[in-house]
Amino acid sequence: MKTEKIILNQEKDVTLTTYLQDCGGEFANIPARPAILVLPGGGYDFCSDREAEPIALTYLHAGYQAFILRYSRMENKKWPAPLMDYEEAITMIRSRAEEWGVIPDKIAVIGFSAGGHLAASAATMSVNRPNAAILVYAVLDEESAKEWNETAPDAVAAVDEKTCPCFLAASRTDTMVPADNTIRFMQALFDHDISFESHVYSFAPHGFSLGDTTVQNPAQKYTPRVGHWVEESFGWLKEVFGDFGQGTLTEPAFGHYALRTHDDHLSLDSTIGQVLATEEGRALFAALMGGQQGGGAQGDINIKQSVMNRFKVSDLLGFSSIPEEVLGQIEAQLKAIKV
Amino acid sequence: MKTEKIILNQEKDVTLTTYLQDCGGEFANIPARPAILVLPGGGYDFCSDREAEPIALTYLHAGYQAFILRYSRMENKKWPAPLMDYEEAITMIRSRAEEWGVIPDKIAVIGFSAGGHLAASAATMSVNRPNAAILVYAVLDEESAKEWNETAPDAVAAVDEKTCPCFLAASRTDTMVPADNTIRFMQALFDHDISFESHVYSFAPHGFSLGDTTVQNPAQKYTPRVGHWVEESFGWLKEVFGDFGQGTLTEPAFGHYALRTHDDHLSLDSTIGQVLATEEGRALFAALMGGQQGGGAQGDINIKQSVMNRFKVSDLLGFSSIPEEVLGQIEAQLKAIKV
Amino acid sequence: MKTEKIILNQEKDVTLTTYLQDCGGEFANIPARPAILVLPGGGYDFCSDREAEPIALTYLHAGYQAFILRYSRMENKKWPAPLMDYEEAITMIRSRAEEWGVIPDKIAVIGFSAGGHLAASAATMSVNRPNAAILVYAVLDEESAKEWNETAPDAVAAVDEKTCPCFLAASRTDTMVPADNTIRFMQALFDHDISFESHVYSFAPHGFSLGDTTVQNPAQKYTPRVGHWVEESFGWLKEVFGDFGQGTLTEPAFGHYALRTHDDHLSLDSTIGQVLATEEGRALFAALMGGQQGGGAQGDINIKQSVMNRFKVSDLLGFSSIPEEVLGQIEAQLKAIKV
Amino acid sequence: MKTEKIILNQEKDVTLTTYLQDCGGEFANIPARPAILVLPGGGYDFCSDREAEPIALTYLHAGYQAFILRYSRMENKKWPAPLMDYEEAITMIRSRAEEWGVIPDKIAVIGFSAGGHLAASAATMSVNRPNAAILVYAVLDEESAKEWNETAPDAVAAVDEKTCPCFLAASRTDTMVPADNTIRFMQALFDHDISFESHVYSFAPHGFSLGDTTVQNPAQKYTPRVGHWVEESFGWLKEVFGDFGQGTLTEPAFGHYALRTHDDHLSLDSTIGQVLATEEGRALFAALMGGQQGGGAQGDINIKQSVMNRFKVSDLLGFSSIPEEVLGQIEAQLKAIKV
Repeated sequence: MKTEKIILNQEKDVTLTTYLQDCGGEFANIPARPAILVLPGGGYDFCSDREAEPIALTYLHAGYQAFILRYSRMENKKWPAPLMDYEEAITMIRSRAEEWGVIPDKIAVIGFSAGGHLAASAATMSVNRPNAAILVYAVLDEESAKEWNETAPDAVAAVDEKTCPCFLAASRTDTMVPADNTIRFMQALFDHDISFESHVYSFAPHGFSLGDTTVQNPAQKYTPRVGHWVEESFGWLKEVFGDFGQGTLTEPAFGHYALRTHDDHLSLDSTIGQVLATEEGRALFAALMGGQQGGGAQGDINIKQSVMNRFKVSDLLGFSSIPEEVLGQIEAQLKAIKV
Repeated sequence: MKTEKIILNQEKDVTLTTYLQDCGGEFANIPARPAILVLPGGGYDFCSDREAEPIALTYLHAGYQAFILRYSRMENKKWPAPLMDYEEAITMIRSRAEEWGVIPDKIAVIGFSAGGHLAASAATMSVNRPNAAILVYAVLDEESAKEWNETAPDAVAAVDEKTCPCFLAASRTDTMVPADNTIRFMQALFDHDISFESHVYSFAPHGFSLGDTTVQNPAQKYTPRVGHWVEESFGWLKEVFGDFGQGTLTEPAFGHYALRTHDDHLSLDSTIGQVLATEEGRALFAALMGGQQGGGAQGDINIKQSVMNRFKVSDLLGFSSIPEEVLGQIEAQLKAIKV
Repeated sequence: MKTEKIILNQEKDVTLTTYLQDCGGEFANIPARPAILVLPGGGYDFCSDREAEPIALTYLHAGYQAFILRYSRMENKKWPAPLMDYEEAITMIRSRAEEWGVIPDKIAVIGFSAGGHLAASAATMSVNRPNAAILVYAVLDEESAKEWNETAPDAVAAVDEKTCPCFLAASRTDTMVPADNTIRFMQALFDHDISFESHVYSFAPHGFSLGDTTVQNPAQKYTPRVGHWVEESFGWLKEVFGDFGQGTLTEPAFGHYALRTHDDHLSLDSTIGQVLATEEGRALFAALMGGQQGGGAQGDINIKQSVMNRFKVSDLLGFSSIPEEVLGQIEAQLKAIKV
Repeated sequence: MKTEKIILNQEKDVTLTTYLQDCGGEFANIPARPAILVLPGGGYDFCSDREAEPIALTYLHAGYQAFILRYSRMENKKWPAPLMDYEEAITMIRSRAEEWGVIPDKIAVIGFSAGGHLAASAATMSVNRPNAAILVYAVLDEESAKEWNETAPDAVAAVDEKTCPCFLAASRTDTMVPADNTIRFMQALFDHDISFESHVYSFAPHGFSLGDTTVQNPAQKYTPRVGHWVEESFGWLKEVFGDFGQGTLTEPAFGHYALRTHDDHLSLDSTIGQVLATEEGRALFAALMGGQQGGGAQGDINIKQSVMNRFKVSDLLGFSSIPEEVLGQIEAQLKAIKV
């Protein structure tokens, strides 16, 4: 493994530490790896060691290249300095991707507390967006952001359609960064149709990090289940990036958007509502449904139009057993329809 | 095991099915068991078998007594008929608790989809509240409630301070009951300081039930992690009810309210904000902090008063190593202060 | 669920209790289920409740039909009475398979302690063999068998080529039935090429059953990991029986024998040693290897003939990327060679 | 993290690579860490990268300091050269423990395949024994040892009373190093009363390493459960070394020997057999049992003397509820009796 501390700004003590494991050779099916950029917490006053190297080691173990960014803090925390540090770091990682054995469009950020605010800002406001973001007991809404850094922006309000898929973990009883930061961010992601996953655990203090004895003071009380977010994040990253395969990662299990397509044409990923919003779509749908008996779904519930409109075409057709080649024909017809 | 189908209303086909396992004897440390009342989904049109017996068997395996309520539906679904069925069921279980080997104040409801709406209604609107509620891809907000039962009330708006601790599980890509039902309910629980836990998984169709091959059509795509809610719910129930111990359940790990106390006096469970809201509390706090050097918490962050006010006294004192007996004295002093 | 206690022998209090869950209907892809026959322990003196219904409930939860056999014990324990009870039970289950929703050739036995001896006897000595056996802290070797029932046979010595695949779990620190019962049985299974899996956990008392708080006295010390055998057995049963699929179980992941075939002809499942033991096989192998460059396997180790002889043909060919159709031709050629 | 490749023998390319994470500072309760020494496999011909850094990263993630020893191989593999490399490595780690943040008596070795043979040799034959050994699809018995290195000794025959606690993992269908290597080693550990844990999984090829997609070629078939040995080893190491606590590791959950004590006096850890083998012990036991009613254990089985002799005194007394102080008196009396 190659580890190196790259100084991004000496005066402000901004550094990028690399943790690079081998690709190729005996790892013949892994010529390059997805990567994770760790943004430790510390109230924009410091960068906590408890949320730095142990996190890098965790994702190295999962097969990732890892990087820790110690960003502008204390007297240098004035916005957008920390976000500029992120932009510099991600740009460097992508530009040196080949040298570092990184797949440049499979880079996640992970941030904790104030570092979670920075990660969410990267996901929602940066020029160089990450491909996924993991936000752990993150500072997200305006009120909390101001409590830790008066110049820090509201990440909830910044969620947009370019926001990457997000994974959220928090504790219900966090007193320093209340769990509704996470709830509000989820709602914003929902409203923008961004893919996400979220886990709010019953009780644990702020700063639980990996939620196990390697980082957590044994004197503090927390549900041991709070550490489950780590394994869940491994699984989620495999879904959003794909898993190690035969030379490349396998196909992702889901995409950027949760339900609607954001293409300029219809497809099997469009919702019925999107299909029915176009005249050609309505005609195609009528023809298709004529061929089916009813729209009968699970348990033969008589589904309202308002519900039906939310179904993806692929989900609806999934209930019947339509041959692959017919599906292909339908998709071609859908794709010919502009929206 | 004793199983029995008790007819609550023959005409409306409302039934309570009991699944009762042994207590005592070789289970000497288990003279009675916590219980779970299963409310299957089905859009208030039917009660799905996929969300009935497999759920009962799951919690029987975890050591619970189990009951399935098949409530008023179809032409009988007009509110409050289903909730009245719940009231009758829980009342019967509590009144026959001794006969049935049930601990009467350790009864959870679990509901799926429309059954989740009924479970949430039980948690928020019933006269005879359950002691915990598990809500799985539940219909909760007004819009969704009306989509499935025009007479059904908004469960989000009904959350109150008597609402029991809740556990929520949902899929981000549910097209029938959108995940923001779960998000909005979480926010309402947060606003009322109710203890909860929540898991929103990346992708799965509506109706995933246990999320495994025993209930899920293998043709449908879903993250296998969606089934993790089951084990998490086992752990959560142990925290809210206690675990099997020496004749009685062990102490719960957390209480009804997440942060604030709702007593008429202060205690170690009060927040600093609650303490400082009383004159006597302010005096006591000043005396205590005089004895401490600063309020220096994790990583010596300089914590703002707005944050500090959210800490529980017990959390704050947890950072120092105060002897048990001194803690006892402080608690006595706090309890003497009325609010 | 239908539960019924069927009296097999009133005088000796031998009973078969059925726990039958629904097939078909909303479980459209599950027209029938695999089954498990539970044989509780108790030193052939009684049948422990701690190893009876909780075990049935566990496998019901996993989608199985479950049966508990309370076999001949105390003054009736003289061999082969308990084994005759097993024969009667399995015969009844198979003959009523359709009525009971059981797949008749997917029936596992599970036995604990002395019940593990009976389960192992069923696996090795019975006329009506089970399709899989789970042996938990089982009495297996002659010395232990005699300690609990002087007339009981040595199950280790009885392992034969018809013995079904076995799953073993034990505790290293069991003082009542020492762990070498399990070790010796494993060795016998190995010697007969029977498929198996085995877990010996670091420490737990005899009689840990499911290894959790639902069955275990909290006063006793045990590694909480000892309960992992339960989930492992779920996974193992899916491999040996197949998982719930589209109307039938999916293909098993492995077969009765671990390495060698026991057919009267060669196949891709034969070992290189089996192939080279026939003249035609030697000719075919030479031809095949001529087409390959070397037998170079993982990491280009220069593999000795004694090792190579243990490889399955399919494993060896798996290292190269031979087209499916060529594989088919090779298999046809192999199958034409009698052994 | 500090990584360094220390050359132990330039000519033979023997190296010790260190992976050292921080102690102290924000990890205030971890002033030093347990360590693991990784011995990769490769048939004594090479040291596989698939069993080197990914293993180090795994245990770093678990909070350990990690070291990889690339030992004598190929033309240098003649015994005892590889074992001498181990002796040099462990001696260096122990002598530099303070500098490297290592707890010198909490060092495990982990070896794979031929590296597993070396790890087992370290556990059984070295001068400087490790404190625990993890043996994964290890070459252990004489026949297998000779297949890979003609000069290599039989590790099964070398098990002695100083052998450290061992954790074993293997695949039933390993064709290169048959699973009975693991079975025979288990039996030898059992015969010498050494603490161990063992997992033999249903099917996987030799060389499964961590058993997941980060190291395993996706073309090969293996039970995904084979990777469970990793988490089990984390749990087992916590039991044998203790977990991270308040400045030191917590008390181990079990000791070097599984059942008998090997002290020169009796104690609560002695077996009844050991107690009854001395005249004073017999007198004390008679006095104790006079005070108890019967030796009635679990389920009131009438336990034979041959079984009873295997119980530890502490286990037997554990069935009753004897006050702590009485236990202390009994222990003092036992300790006064020499054996």
